[in-house]
Amino acid sequence: MNLNPGERVDQLYANDVQIIQSKEVFSFSLDAVLLANFATLPQKGHIVDLCAGNGAISLFMSKKTQALITGIELQKRLADMGKRSIKLNNLEHQLEIHQLDLKDSLTKVRHDSVDLVVCNPPYFKELPTSKKNPNPYLALARHEIQTNLNQVVQMAARLLKTNGKFALVHRPDRFLDILAALQLAKLAPKRVRFVYSKHESEANMVLVEAIKNGKTDGFKVLPPLFVYDNSNQYLPEVRRMLYGG
Amino acid sequence: MNLNPGERVDQLYANDVQIIQSKEVFSFSLDAVLLANFATLPQKGHIVDLCAGNGAISLFMSKKTQALITGIELQKRLADMGKRSIKLNNLEHQLEIHQLDLKDSLTKVRHDSVDLVVCNPPYFKELPTSKKNPNPYLALARHEIQTNLNQVVQMAARLLKTNGKFALVHRPDRFLDILAALQLAKLAPKRVRFVYSKHESEANMVLVEAIKNGKTDGFKVLPPLFVYDNSNQYLPEVRRMLYGG
Repeated sequence: MNLNPGERVDQLYANDVQIIQSKEVFSFSLDAVLLANFATLPQKGHIVDLCAGNGAISLFMSKKTQALITGIELQKRLADMGKRSIKLNNLEHQLEIHQLDLKDSLTKVRHDSVDLVVCNPPYFKELPTSKKNPNPYLALARHEIQTNLNQVVQMAARLLKTNGKFALVHRPDRFLDILAALQLAKLAPKRVRFVYSKHESEANMVLVEAIKNGKTDGFKVLPPLFVYDNSNQYLPEVRRMLYGG
Repeated sequence: MNLNPGERVDQLYANDVQIIQSKEVFSFSLDAVLLANFATLPQKGHIVDLCAGNGAISLFMSKKTQALITGIELQKRLADMGKRSIKLNNLEHQLEIHQLDLKDSLTKVRHDSVDLVVCNPPYFKELPTSKKNPNPYLALARHEIQTNLNQVVQMAARLLKTNGKFALVHRPDRFLDILAALQLAKLAPKRVRFVYSKHESEANMVLVEAIKNGKTDGFKVLPPLFVYDNSNQYLPEVRRMLYGG
């Protein structure tokens, strides 16, 4: 197996997946693990992972579904890490990653054909005043430089079949923007779960699932997810996602 | 003190308030206590309580602010109970309740003048298929028969001064409707707290605070509020609201 300088292989013990990562370029975070566990996975059909990064979410999902999974990732170095991780896990029959601007997703995946779109997009608005990460790989992954929330949501809506699902992880301070973008794209939010670092903290992540052309009733707020206990150890639900058991 | 048939006096121990209630007509619920504790109370100025019922929220708030408090309640029997509770607690200098359709609130309170509007409105949409409570008092209090979410929010916006606050308790399945109504009325949601009966349950109440003509950034999801432990006893935060200490 080929590792480039600075790369390492990490393992997600809960589902025995190996992932090529690099501190310099990209390593998956808890957000990816939470999203892969939150999304309602179809057992067959087609899943698309927008802003796929190094393919972490796609790799995690592959262990829980027979569906084909297509990742779309703009950054060549990240897409390349993802492609090598697919080989490393012998998942070429189920997973693919295209190095592609998500605006061009329809050149690889047919519109109105997808059962589930997942996305862990850049979280931060690109404003003249925003402090960006000086590392260009991380800046693109974290800031809305090459894409933004509305573009992601619009593309998800175009890819999905009617009643197909869209699952997103984002920050709660963007929650109103998320709902506005979903409404514009005729994706009806159905399940929301807020994630809290600790019991007494404000939510620092939100997981949202929406249905294409769904009715807007039946909106549910799931039990909160707490990440750490008071000694900064992972709480059992998160520990199970990471280490299994 | 005059009690009508079926009425009783209940006490909220946490702030030593006595409230005239009646099973037949209306008794306050935990929702009122949570809203009174959630709202950011101005220390002076003017607070309006829309859909005031028997005045429970107004009475609770009176112990924590010097502001004048005006309740608006459509139902004569409820408004009358509220008026007698105000006397019973010797709060005539601070509280008043008007028996009035909330559409006519501006006949009693000047537009653009209020610091805080609170509301515990009817929760259930009035649909031809809805099962209504056969008790007409409870049906009006719980179903959108005489008013609805949009009317409540529009009136709150007209009453409030710029940067005045609106605090609402409602059900999470109406959360998308709430956000749409707030946006239409130019009230920017700022703080949201979801309430869960137990740790593993879906949210069954939501508390929302919005600011008139506020910017739409800075949206926060507060720590979740759990009501009961596994033995169906109130958890400490709720116990403190009800019994003090």
